[in-house]
Amino acid sequence: MDGQLILHEDARSGNCYKIRLTAAHLDVPLTRRDYDIMKGETRTPAFLESVNANGRIPVLQVGDQFLPESNAACFWLADGSHLIPADRFARADMLHWMFWEQYNHEPNVATLRFWRLFVGEDRLNDVQRAQLPAKQAAGEAALKLMDEHLAGQAWFAGAAFSLADICLYAYTHVADAGGFDLNAYPHVRRWLGDVAALPGHIVMEPAPALAA
Amino acid sequence: MDGQLILHEDARSGNCYKIRLTAAHLDVPLTRRDYDIMKGETRTPAFLESVNANGRIPVLQVGDQFLPESNAACFWLADGSHLIPADRFARADMLHWMFWEQYNHEPNVATLRFWRLFVGEDRLNDVQRAQLPAKQAAGEAALKLMDEHLAGQAWFAGAAFSLADICLYAYTHVADAGGFDLNAYPHVRRWLGDVAALPGHIVMEPAPALAA
Repeated sequence: MDGQLILHEDARSGNCYKIRLTAAHLDVPLTRRDYDIMKGETRTPAFLESVNANGRIPVLQVGDQFLPESNAACFWLADGSHLIPADRFARADMLHWMFWEQYNHEPNVATLRFWRLFVGEDRLNDVQRAQLPAKQAAGEAALKLMDEHLAGQAWFAGAAFSLADICLYAYTHVADAGGFDLNAYPHVRRWLGDVAALPGHIVMEPAPALAA
Repeated sequence: MDGQLILHEDARSGNCYKIRLTAAHLDVPLTRRDYDIMKGETRTPAFLESVNANGRIPVLQVGDQFLPESNAACFWLADGSHLIPADRFARADMLHWMFWEQYNHEPNVATLRFWRLFVGEDRLNDVQRAQLPAKQAAGEAALKLMDEHLAGQAWFAGAAFSLADICLYAYTHVADAGGFDLNAYPHVRRWLGDVAALPGHIVMEPAPALAA
Protein backbone atom coordinates (compact mmCIF):
# COMPACT_ATOMS: atom_id res chain seq x y z
CA MET A 1 0.00 0.00 0.00
CA ASP A 2 1.08 3.55 -0.75
CA GLY A 3 1.46 4.97 2.74
CA GLN A 4 -1.26 5.34 5.33
CA LEU A 5 -4.90 4.90 4.34
CA ILE A 6 -7.37 7.25 6.00
CA LEU A 7 -11.12 6.89 5.57
CA HIS A 8 -12.94 10.20 6.00
CA GLU A 9 -16.43 9.05 6.94
CA ASP A 10 -19.67 9.20 8.88
CA ALA A 11 -20.06 5.74 10.41
CA ARG A 12 -23.86 5.78 9.88
CA SER A 13 -23.45 6.00 6.09
CA GLY A 14 -23.77 2.84 4.01
CA ASN A 15 -21.45 4.38 1.42
CA CYS A 16 -18.71 4.55 4.09
CA TYR A 17 -19.47 1.02 5.32
CA LYS A 18 -18.86 -0.33 1.78
CA ILE A 19 -15.25 0.79 1.98
CA ARG A 20 -14.72 -0.68 5.45
CA LEU A 21 -16.30 -3.94 4.29
CA THR A 22 -14.02 -4.07 1.23
CA ALA A 23 -10.97 -3.37 3.39
CA ALA A 24 -12.05 -6.06 5.87
CA HIS A 25 -12.30 -8.68 3.11
CA LEU A 26 -8.81 -7.71 1.95
CA ASP A 27 -7.42 -7.50 5.49
CA VAL A 28 -6.21 -3.93 4.83
CA PRO A 29 -6.10 -1.60 7.85
CA LEU A 30 -7.85 1.80 7.59
CA THR A 31 -7.52 4.77 9.91
CA ARG A 32 -10.98 6.23 10.43
CA ARG A 33 -11.71 9.94 10.75
CA ASP A 34 -15.29 10.74 11.67
CA TYR A 35 -17.48 13.64 10.51
CA ASP A 36 -21.09 14.38 11.48
CA ILE A 37 -22.92 15.16 8.24
CA MET A 38 -25.98 16.32 10.22
CA LYS A 39 -23.81 19.09 11.70
CA GLY A 40 -22.43 20.16 8.31
CA GLU A 41 -18.91 18.95 9.10
CA THR A 42 -18.30 18.02 5.44
CA ARG A 43 -19.28 21.48 4.18
CA THR A 44 -16.74 23.53 6.11
CA PRO A 45 -14.20 25.59 4.11
CA ALA A 46 -11.39 23.38 5.44
CA PHE A 47 -13.11 20.17 4.31
CA LEU A 48 -14.00 21.58 0.87
CA GLU A 49 -10.45 22.86 0.40
CA SER A 50 -8.47 19.88 1.58
CA VAL A 51 -10.64 16.73 1.46
CA ASN A 52 -13.44 16.97 -1.13
CA ALA A 53 -14.64 20.02 -3.08
CA ASN A 54 -17.95 18.17 -3.49
CA GLY A 55 -18.60 18.36 0.28
CA ARG A 56 -19.34 14.68 0.72
CA ILE A 57 -18.04 11.64 2.51
CA PRO A 58 -16.69 9.01 2.12
CA VAL A 59 -13.28 10.03 0.86
CA LEU A 60 -10.40 7.57 0.91
CA GLN A 61 -7.07 9.29 1.53
CA VAL A 62 -4.10 7.43 0.02
CA GLY A 63 -0.99 9.15 1.29
CA ASP A 64 -1.53 12.78 0.22
CA GLN A 65 -4.10 11.95 -2.49
CA PHE A 66 -7.86 12.08 -1.93
CA LEU A 67 -10.35 9.74 -3.62
CA PRO A 68 -14.07 10.61 -3.34
CA GLU A 69 -17.00 8.37 -4.42
CA SER A 70 -17.51 5.20 -2.41
CA ASN A 71 -17.48 2.77 -5.32
CA ALA A 72 -14.26 4.23 -6.74
CA ALA A 73 -12.62 3.88 -3.32
CA CYS A 74 -13.71 0.22 -3.18
CA PHE A 75 -12.20 -0.28 -6.64
CA TRP A 76 -8.88 1.25 -5.57
CA LEU A 77 -8.70 -1.04 -2.54
CA ALA A 78 -9.65 -4.17 -4.50
CA ASP A 79 -7.68 -3.47 -7.70
CA GLY A 80 -5.80 -6.66 -8.57
CA SER A 81 -7.57 -8.75 -5.92
CA HIS A 82 -10.12 -11.59 -6.01
CA LEU A 83 -12.91 -9.04 -5.40
CA ILE A 84 -12.69 -7.91 -9.05
CA PRO A 85 -13.36 -10.59 -11.69
CA ALA A 86 -10.45 -11.53 -13.93
CA ASP A 87 -12.82 -12.07 -16.88
CA ARG A 88 -13.29 -8.96 -19.01
CA PHE A 89 -17.07 -9.20 -19.37
CA ALA A 90 -17.63 -10.05 -15.70
CA ARG A 91 -15.40 -7.13 -14.68
CA ALA A 92 -17.51 -4.68 -16.71
CA ASP A 93 -20.69 -6.38 -15.46
CA MET A 94 -19.50 -5.79 -11.89
CA LEU A 95 -19.19 -2.08 -12.76
CA HIS A 96 -22.66 -2.20 -14.38
CA TRP A 97 -24.14 -3.18 -11.02
CA MET A 98 -22.04 -0.59 -9.18
CA PHE A 99 -23.20 2.21 -11.52
CA TRP A 100 -26.76 0.90 -11.28
CA GLU A 101 -26.46 1.00 -7.47
CA GLN A 102 -25.53 4.67 -7.51
CA TYR A 103 -28.19 5.64 -10.06
CA ASN A 104 -31.22 3.44 -9.34
CA HIS A 105 -30.75 2.09 -5.81
CA GLU A 106 -28.90 4.55 -3.57
CA PRO A 107 -30.93 7.70 -4.46
CA ASN A 108 -34.09 5.81 -3.44
CA VAL A 109 -33.28 3.12 -0.88
CA ALA A 110 -30.53 5.10 0.90
CA THR A 111 -32.19 8.50 0.60
CA LEU A 112 -35.44 7.26 2.17
CA ARG A 113 -33.43 5.71 5.03
CA PHE A 114 -31.65 9.04 5.51
CA TRP A 115 -34.87 11.05 5.40
CA ARG A 116 -36.85 8.70 7.67
CA LEU A 117 -34.14 7.62 10.15
CA PHE A 118 -31.92 10.70 10.47
CA VAL A 119 -33.89 13.75 9.26
CA GLY A 120 -37.37 12.60 10.33
CA GLU A 121 -40.34 12.49 7.94
CA ASP A 122 -42.05 15.41 9.67
CA ARG A 123 -39.01 17.63 9.07
CA LEU A 124 -38.78 17.12 5.30
CA ASN A 125 -39.29 20.16 3.09
CA ASP A 126 -42.07 20.27 0.49
CA VAL A 127 -39.85 19.26 -2.44
CA GLN A 128 -38.57 16.22 -0.50
CA ARG A 129 -42.08 15.28 0.63
CA ALA A 130 -43.36 15.48 -2.97
CA GLN A 131 -40.72 12.92 -4.00
CA LEU A 132 -41.59 10.31 -1.35
CA PRO A 133 -44.02 8.23 -3.48
CA ALA A 134 -41.71 8.18 -6.51
CA LYS A 135 -38.68 7.26 -4.40
CA GLN A 136 -40.63 4.53 -2.62
CA ALA A 137 -41.76 3.07 -5.98
CA ALA A 138 -38.27 3.33 -7.50
CA GLY A 139 -36.75 1.69 -4.43
CA GLU A 140 -39.25 -1.18 -4.63
CA ALA A 141 -38.47 -1.55 -8.35
CA ALA A 142 -34.74 -1.70 -7.58
CA LEU A 143 -35.24 -4.40 -4.93
CA LYS A 144 -37.49 -6.36 -7.31
CA LEU A 145 -34.87 -6.21 -10.06
CA MET A 146 -32.25 -7.50 -7.61
CA ASP A 147 -34.57 -10.27 -6.48
CA GLU A 148 -35.24 -11.45 -10.05
CA HIS A 149 -31.52 -11.38 -10.83
CA LEU A 150 -30.63 -13.35 -7.70
CA ALA A 151 -33.29 -15.97 -8.48
CA GLY A 152 -30.96 -17.17 -11.22
CA GLN A 153 -27.50 -16.74 -9.76
CA ALA A 154 -25.62 -16.71 -6.48
CA TRP A 155 -23.82 -13.36 -6.82
CA PHE A 156 -24.32 -10.21 -8.91
CA ALA A 157 -21.50 -10.34 -11.45
CA GLY A 158 -19.76 -13.45 -12.72
CA ALA A 159 -19.55 -16.62 -10.66
CA ALA A 160 -18.02 -15.24 -7.45
CA PHE A 161 -18.56 -12.64 -4.72
CA SER A 162 -17.26 -9.26 -5.94
CA LEU A 163 -17.39 -5.53 -5.27
CA ALA A 164 -20.85 -5.51 -6.89
CA ASP A 165 -22.13 -7.57 -3.95
CA ILE A 166 -20.36 -5.39 -1.37
CA CYS A 167 -21.67 -2.14 -2.87
CA LEU A 168 -25.25 -3.43 -3.13
CA TYR A 169 -25.20 -5.05 0.32
CA ALA A 170 -24.46 -1.78 2.12
CA TYR A 171 -27.87 -0.11 1.80
CA THR A 172 -29.94 -3.20 0.99
CA HIS A 173 -29.37 -4.88 4.33
CA VAL A 174 -30.70 -1.80 6.17
CA ALA A 175 -33.50 -1.01 3.68
CA ASP A 176 -36.14 -1.63 6.35
CA ALA A 177 -35.08 1.64 8.00
CA GLY A 178 -36.12 3.40 4.80
CA GLY A 179 -39.56 1.83 4.80
CA PHE A 180 -38.93 -1.22 2.59
CA ASP A 181 -40.12 -4.69 3.58
CA LEU A 182 -37.43 -7.19 2.64
CA ASN A 183 -39.80 -10.11 3.26
CA ALA A 184 -41.13 -9.41 -0.24
CA TYR A 185 -37.74 -10.32 -1.74
CA PRO A 186 -36.77 -13.88 -0.76
CA HIS A 187 -33.79 -14.16 -3.11
CA VAL A 188 -32.40 -10.88 -1.79
CA ARG A 189 -32.77 -12.24 1.75
CA ARG A 190 -30.94 -15.46 0.80
CA TRP A 191 -28.12 -13.38 -0.74
CA LEU A 192 -27.93 -11.03 2.29
CA GLY A 193 -27.40 -14.10 4.47
CA ASP A 194 -24.73 -15.46 2.14
CA VAL A 195 -22.82 -12.14 2.20
CA ALA A 196 -23.00 -11.91 5.99
CA ALA A 197 -21.74 -15.50 6.37
CA LEU A 198 -18.53 -14.94 4.41
CA PRO A 199 -15.19 -15.03 6.26
CA GLY A 200 -13.94 -11.47 6.66
CA HIS A 201 -17.44 -9.97 6.97
CA ILE A 202 -17.90 -7.07 9.38
CA VAL A 203 -21.15 -5.48 10.51
CA MET A 204 -22.20 -1.86 10.08
CA GLU A 205 -22.35 0.15 13.28
CA PRO A 206 -25.92 0.40 14.55
CA ALA A 207 -27.33 3.83 13.76
CA PRO A 208 -28.13 5.97 16.81
CA ALA A 209 -31.81 6.73 17.22
CA LEU A 210 -33.21 9.96 15.83
CA ALA A 211 -33.17 12.80 18.36
CA ALA A 212 -36.68 13.73 19.41
CA MET B 1 -13.47 -8.59 -29.84
CA ASP B 2 -15.86 -11.33 -28.73
CA GLY B 3 -18.20 -11.50 -31.72
CA GLN B 4 -20.42 -8.74 -33.02
CA LEU B 5 -20.99 -5.64 -30.91
CA ILE B 6 -24.50 -4.17 -30.98
CA LEU B 7 -25.35 -0.89 -29.32
CA HIS B 8 -29.02 -0.72 -28.29
CA GLU B 9 -29.61 3.01 -28.15
CA ASP B 10 -31.58 6.19 -28.71
CA ALA B 11 -29.29 8.44 -30.74
CA ARG B 12 -30.46 11.58 -28.88
CA SER B 13 -29.16 10.26 -25.56
CA GLY B 14 -25.81 11.48 -24.29
CA ASN B 15 -25.38 8.19 -22.43
CA CYS B 16 -25.50 6.36 -25.78
CA TYR B 17 -23.18 8.90 -27.42
CA LYS B 18 -20.51 8.16 -24.76
CA ILE B 19 -20.29 4.59 -25.98
CA ARG B 20 -20.07 5.59 -29.65
CA LEU B 21 -17.39 8.17 -28.78
CA THR B 22 -15.37 5.56 -26.86
CA ALA B 23 -15.66 3.10 -29.77
CA ALA B 24 -14.63 5.81 -32.24
CA HIS B 25 -11.47 6.59 -30.24
CA LEU B 26 -10.64 2.88 -30.22
CA ASP B 27 -11.61 2.39 -33.89
CA VAL B 28 -14.01 -0.40 -32.91
CA PRO B 29 -17.09 -0.87 -35.14
CA LEU B 30 -20.53 -0.95 -33.50
CA THR B 31 -23.82 -2.04 -35.04
CA ARG B 32 -26.50 0.40 -33.93
CA ARG B 33 -30.08 -0.56 -33.08
CA ASP B 34 -32.36 2.39 -32.46
CA TYR B 35 -35.23 2.69 -29.95
CA ASP B 36 -37.49 5.69 -29.36
CA ILE B 37 -37.64 6.17 -25.60
CA MET B 38 -40.45 8.73 -26.01
CA LYS B 39 -42.61 5.96 -27.50
CA GLY B 40 -41.80 3.51 -24.69
CA GLU B 41 -39.80 1.20 -26.94
CA THR B 42 -37.45 0.25 -24.07
CA ARG B 43 -40.34 -0.75 -21.76
CA THR B 44 -41.90 -3.44 -23.96
CA PRO B 45 -42.05 -7.00 -22.61
CA ALA B 46 -39.62 -8.14 -25.32
CA PHE B 47 -37.05 -5.46 -24.42
CA LEU B 48 -37.36 -6.12 -20.66
CA GLU B 49 -37.04 -9.85 -21.23
CA SER B 50 -34.16 -9.97 -23.69
CA VAL B 51 -32.19 -6.70 -23.52
CA ASN B 52 -32.46 -4.99 -20.11
CA ALA B 53 -34.81 -5.77 -17.22
CA ASN B 54 -34.24 -2.17 -16.08
CA GLY B 55 -36.00 -0.84 -19.21
CA ARG B 56 -33.24 1.58 -20.18
CA ILE B 57 -30.81 2.23 -22.97
CA PRO B 58 -27.94 2.16 -23.69
CA VAL B 59 -27.13 -1.53 -23.56
CA LEU B 60 -24.00 -2.90 -25.21
CA GLN B 61 -24.52 -6.39 -26.58
CA VAL B 62 -21.32 -8.47 -26.72
CA GLY B 63 -22.17 -11.63 -28.62
CA ASP B 64 -25.08 -13.04 -26.59
CA GLN B 65 -24.31 -11.08 -23.40
CA PHE B 66 -25.97 -7.76 -22.52
CA LEU B 67 -24.23 -4.96 -20.63
CA PRO B 68 -26.40 -2.09 -19.34
CA GLU B 69 -25.12 1.20 -17.82
CA SER B 70 -23.29 3.53 -20.19
CA ASN B 71 -20.15 3.95 -18.12
CA ALA B 72 -19.75 0.18 -17.67
CA ALA B 73 -20.09 -0.30 -21.44
CA CYS B 74 -17.38 2.33 -22.01
CA PHE B 75 -15.17 0.46 -19.53
CA TRP B 76 -15.68 -2.86 -21.34
CA LEU B 77 -14.73 -1.29 -24.67
CA ALA B 78 -11.68 0.51 -23.28
CA ASP B 79 -10.43 -2.23 -20.94
CA GLY B 80 -6.69 -2.61 -21.55
CA SER B 81 -6.47 0.47 -23.80
CA HIS B 82 -4.89 3.95 -23.44
CA LEU B 83 -8.31 5.32 -22.41
CA ILE B 84 -7.88 3.77 -18.94
CA PRO B 85 -4.86 4.98 -16.91
CA ALA B 86 -2.20 2.37 -16.15
CA ASP B 87 -1.52 3.98 -12.76
CA ARG B 88 -3.60 2.48 -9.96
CA PHE B 89 -4.63 5.76 -8.31
CA ALA B 90 -5.39 7.48 -11.62
CA ARG B 91 -7.50 4.48 -12.68
CA ALA B 92 -9.62 4.72 -9.53
CA ASP B 93 -9.73 8.52 -9.90
CA MET B 94 -11.12 8.04 -13.42
CA LEU B 95 -13.88 5.91 -11.88
CA HIS B 96 -14.43 8.57 -9.20
CA TRP B 97 -15.32 11.08 -11.93
CA MET B 98 -17.48 8.50 -13.76
CA PHE B 99 -19.45 7.71 -10.59
CA TRP B 100 -19.69 11.43 -9.83
CA GLU B 101 -21.03 12.00 -13.36
CA GLN B 102 -23.85 9.52 -12.81
CA TYR B 103 -24.71 10.80 -9.32
CA ASN B 104 -24.13 14.57 -9.39
CA HIS B 105 -24.10 15.59 -13.05
CA GLU B 106 -26.37 13.40 -15.20
CA PRO B 107 -29.47 13.51 -12.93
CA ASN B 108 -29.34 17.32 -13.13
CA VAL B 109 -27.65 18.43 -16.36
CA ALA B 110 -29.02 15.59 -18.52
CA THR B 111 -32.43 15.40 -16.87
CA LEU B 112 -33.09 19.13 -17.38
CA ARG B 113 -32.09 18.76 -21.06
CA PHE B 114 -34.49 15.83 -21.37
CA TRP B 115 -37.31 17.66 -19.63
CA ARG B 116 -36.83 20.95 -21.52
CA LEU B 117 -35.82 19.68 -24.99
CA PHE B 118 -37.80 16.45 -25.35
CA VAL B 119 -40.71 16.50 -22.86
CA GLY B 120 -41.35 20.25 -22.81
CA GLU B 121 -41.42 22.31 -19.62
CA ASP B 122 -45.19 22.87 -19.88
CA ARG B 123 -45.81 19.11 -19.93
CA LEU B 124 -43.91 18.28 -16.73
CA ASN B 125 -45.90 16.84 -13.85
CA ASP B 126 -46.06 18.58 -10.48
CA VAL B 127 -43.33 16.45 -8.88
CA GLN B 128 -40.98 17.16 -11.78
CA ARG B 129 -41.81 20.86 -11.74
CA ALA B 130 -41.13 21.06 -7.99
CA GLN B 131 -37.63 19.69 -8.61
CA LEU B 132 -36.63 22.25 -11.27
CA PRO B 133 -34.95 24.80 -8.94
CA ALA B 134 -32.98 22.13 -7.04
CA LYS B 135 -31.87 20.41 -10.26
CA GLN B 136 -30.86 23.74 -11.80
CA ALA B 137 -28.79 24.59 -8.69
CA ALA B 138 -27.22 21.14 -8.51
CA GLY B 139 -26.37 21.25 -12.22
CA GLU B 140 -24.72 24.67 -11.79
CA ALA B 141 -22.78 23.30 -8.79
CA ALA B 142 -21.59 20.33 -10.88
CA LEU B 143 -20.40 22.58 -13.71
CA LYS B 144 -18.66 24.87 -11.20
CA LEU B 145 -16.86 21.91 -9.61
CA MET B 146 -15.70 20.79 -13.07
CA ASP B 147 -14.54 24.31 -13.90
CA GLU B 148 -12.48 24.59 -10.71
CA HIS B 149 -10.93 21.18 -11.32
CA LEU B 150 -10.05 22.02 -14.91
CA ALA B 151 -8.46 25.32 -13.86
CA GLY B 152 -5.60 23.23 -12.50
CA GLN B 153 -5.25 20.39 -14.98
CA ALA B 154 -5.82 19.49 -18.62
CA TRP B 155 -7.94 16.36 -18.18
CA PHE B 156 -10.08 14.90 -15.40
CA ALA B 157 -8.05 11.93 -14.14
CA GLY B 158 -4.30 11.54 -14.34
CA ALA B 159 -2.23 13.28 -17.01
CA ALA B 160 -4.03 12.08 -20.15
CA PHE B 161 -7.44 11.99 -21.81
CA SER B 162 -9.47 9.05 -20.39
CA LEU B 163 -12.98 7.64 -20.10
CA ALA B 164 -13.63 10.24 -17.40
CA ASP B 165 -13.38 12.95 -20.06
CA ILE B 166 -15.56 11.03 -22.53
CA CYS B 167 -18.27 10.34 -19.95
CA LEU B 168 -18.34 13.95 -18.73
CA TYR B 169 -18.18 15.43 -22.22
CA ALA B 170 -21.39 13.73 -23.39
CA TYR B 171 -23.91 15.85 -21.49
CA THR B 172 -21.70 18.84 -20.69
CA HIS B 173 -21.26 19.89 -24.32
CA VAL B 174 -25.05 20.06 -24.79
CA ALA B 175 -25.81 21.54 -21.34
CA ASP B 176 -27.18 24.73 -22.96
CA ALA B 177 -30.23 22.70 -24.08
CA GLY B 178 -30.95 22.06 -20.39
CA GLY B 179 -30.81 25.76 -19.51
CA PHE B 180 -27.17 26.07 -18.44
CA ASP B 181 -24.95 28.90 -19.70
CA LEU B 182 -21.49 27.47 -20.38
CA ASN B 183 -20.04 30.99 -20.76
CA ALA B 184 -19.86 31.03 -16.96
CA TYR B 185 -17.34 28.15 -17.04
CA PRO B 186 -14.27 29.16 -19.09
CA HIS B 187 -12.13 26.17 -18.11
CA VAL B 188 -14.94 23.79 -19.05
CA ARG B 189 -15.19 25.54 -22.44
CA ARG B 190 -11.42 25.19 -22.98
CA TRP B 191 -11.65 21.48 -22.14
CA LEU B 192 -14.69 20.93 -24.39
CA GLY B 193 -12.65 22.39 -27.26
CA ASP B 194 -9.69 20.15 -26.43
CA VAL B 195 -11.88 17.03 -26.42
CA ALA B 196 -13.52 17.95 -29.74
CA ALA B 197 -10.10 18.58 -31.33
CA LEU B 198 -8.74 15.08 -30.60
CA PRO B 199 -8.13 12.69 -33.49
CA GLY B 200 -10.92 10.10 -33.50
CA HIS B 201 -13.57 12.49 -32.19
CA ILE B 202 -17.09 12.14 -33.54
CA VAL B 203 -20.03 14.49 -33.00
CA MET B 204 -23.38 13.66 -31.42
CA GLU B 205 -26.32 13.63 -33.81
CA PRO B 206 -28.26 16.89 -33.59
CA ALA B 207 -31.46 16.37 -31.59
CA PRO B 208 -34.67 16.80 -33.56
CA ALA B 209 -36.82 19.73 -32.45
CA LEU B 210 -39.59 19.13 -29.91
CA ALA B 211 -42.94 18.34 -31.52
CA ALA B 212 -45.39 21.21 -31.07
